[in-house]
Amino acid sequence: MGEKLGTSCIAVDAMGSDLGPGEIIAGVCRALRESKSGVKIIAVGDESQINDHLRQNGFYRDSRIEICHASQVIEMHEKPIQAMRAKKDSSMMKAIDLAKSGAADAVLSCGNTGALMAAGTIKLRTMPGIERPALGAIIPSDRRNFILIDVGANPDPRPVNMRDNAILGANYARIAGIADAPKVGLLSNGTEDGKGNILTQNAHILMSNSLERGMYAGLIEGFQVFQGDCDVIICDGFTGNILLKTLEGITKMLKGMLKEELTRNYLRKFGALLAMGAFKGIKNRIPVEKFSGAPLLGLNKLIVKGHGSSNSAQVAGALGIAIKCVRRRLNDCISADLERIRLAENKAEETQDDKKE
Amino acid sequence: MGEKLGTSCIAVDAMGSDLGPGEIIAGVCRALRESKSGVKIIAVGDESQINDHLRQNGFYRDSRIEICHASQVIEMHEKPIQAMRAKKDSSMMKAIDLAKSGAADAVLSCGNTGALMAAGTIKLRTMPGIERPALGAIIPSDRRNFILIDVGANPDPRPVNMRDNAILGANYARIAGIADAPKVGLLSNGTEDGKGNILTQNAHILMSNSLERGMYAGLIEGFQVFQGDCDVIICDGFTGNILLKTLEGITKMLKGMLKEELTRNYLRKFGALLAMGAFKGIKNRIPVEKFSGAPLLGLNKLIVKGHGSSNSAQVAGALGIAIKCVRRRLNDCISADLERIRLAENKAEETQDDKKE
Repeated sequence: MGEKLGTSCIAVDAMGSDLGPGEIIAGVCRALRESKSGVKIIAVGDESQINDHLRQNGFYRDSRIEICHASQVIEMHEKPIQAMRAKKDSSMMKAIDLAKSGAADAVLSCGNTGALMAAGTIKLRTMPGIERPALGAIIPSDRRNFILIDVGANPDPRPVNMRDNAILGANYARIAGIADAPKVGLLSNGTEDGKGNILTQNAHILMSNSLERGMYAGLIEGFQVFQGDCDVIICDGFTGNILLKTLEGITKMLKGMLKEELTRNYLRKFGALLAMGAFKGIKNRIPVEKFSGAPLLGLNKLIVKGHGSSNSAQVAGALGIAIKCVRRRLNDCISADLERIRLAENKAEETQDDKKE
Repeated sequence: MGEKLGTSCIAVDAMGSDLGPGEIIAGVCRALRESKSGVKIIAVGDESQINDHLRQNGFYRDSRIEICHASQVIEMHEKPIQAMRAKKDSSMMKAIDLAKSGAADAVLSCGNTGALMAAGTIKLRTMPGIERPALGAIIPSDRRNFILIDVGANPDPRPVNMRDNAILGANYARIAGIADAPKVGLLSNGTEDGKGNILTQNAHILMSNSLERGMYAGLIEGFQVFQGDCDVIICDGFTGNILLKTLEGITKMLKGMLKEELTRNYLRKFGALLAMGAFKGIKNRIPVEKFSGAPLLGLNKLIVKGHGSSNSAQVAGALGIAIKCVRRRLNDCISADLERIRLAENKAEETQDDKKE
């Protein structure tokens, strides 16, 4: 399965975001500047606002950008299902509709996560063989970046959902350039026999039996997460969401403390100035902006969720992820893997039946 | 309920640790140097080794230290239940036996966590009204330190266990000096209606109904953990363990990167030297060593688990926690709270019955 031929088309929800359409459109233009040919963007939202921002960025009437007017915006605080029903002409719903109709290959939105996941799942449906979608986030790490999946789509998964997430995550890892042959680990509270909650114990058995041996690295503990042992780390959406947000929280706290302490007096300020390269070095080693989009994997069309407070660089990063996934046919790759597992399971059952006879 | 009168006696497992009895005994001596009168230590382990280390620290034949000889050591990798059965004369088992017999008020061990939790629970039993014990860790934070409970004792709790952990954690927070009137939050993947896994949703309902309104602050998300909103953060032992270990992992990674980058060339080294006060400032603001002991709360006698790789300062810190909890009668405070809840629930039931009549 090679690259997608022809133009990849991404529907972008231009309105849903903490920072407003300006950052979104600036991000789209930035991505187009960096991108090779073969990308089309449908910017969904208030036409005049979008045109204003396109003009400011020098992309007014650019042939690669089409505008789809939407009169409503789903706000961040709105309840997902209610918003979805009440705001059929919102930028988010219309962007998803474009993917549903086939006019777009994927959707990017930095808006209300709950509404995006609910509407995406209901309108686009899960792929054949996948019961529930999952949010996969790329976490930058010094040793090697990794994918944490699920970070919030399914807080109460069944073991089979977690096994499927291994397939979703591994294919995403390949396409995002994390690893050619990704190693998958299952996050637990210990690696000894009998450790883990019941869900994780059962998922571990299923994954040991149905994933390829070279792919599944088994259970890992929290302190291993940043040691570079795995490319894809599986956990339920409840734990994954808490983990992701707490990591963001502690990083922010430490960064804030460092800044405060380094600017407390002139001597420290001067020292920090001399050592400036070190701080830039760290920023380069863990480039948080580059990985700000988390795709909702397992639907018939890809949805990429950008951080609500994404700036233009982050929007461009998230859009880059969407383009890569479409070009490299993420969903076809996932389908092929699922089919392989299904065939292996059927074969195992047949062997079982033969033995019984 | 005031301070405990007379001498508090702590049984210390002198052998179980990554760094050996030297660090443990040095930590005990350090704690005794810092402590006021009224503490007795029973050092459990190989008598001649313990005496050697006491001599080195200037505490040989000190009246405050008694030695209880134990011929065996439970190693870190051993399976809990097997080790417990096979090594009845181990330092850990004998330390717990001393608490069981009433000779000691509490146990401190840096040894095999699984064995300590299993043997502690089986030998010491849970307090009346408590079904399962919980590990409560003090997490240092810039805004305010907080207690995360449970960090691994019970990976599959029932909602009532989590409610009870709020009582355990709040009393521990009071005694550890975190807050006089601790605010308790329940960790979830979102605070909106319908968010959370089923366990957390049910725990939230129970906690809303049975904990005092001023005490229970409701659901909090991962990004709030380090914002200083809560003194006690409740989560299941699976999530808590993963969170704690991953936070340790990311802190270690960031520290390592900073050190590497700051020593990469002479200019940076000189800058770092000038700004040295900043790095010390951060260390003072989040004093990790001070909080290295995590008590296993909810048993009839307190067990404090020190980190396996604790140095003498950390051992002294953990011992300090044990002494504080005994002196300030932690278990009596917990019992009183549980009794209050039980009475309130009975009263609510009676009112319900009256209404029916």
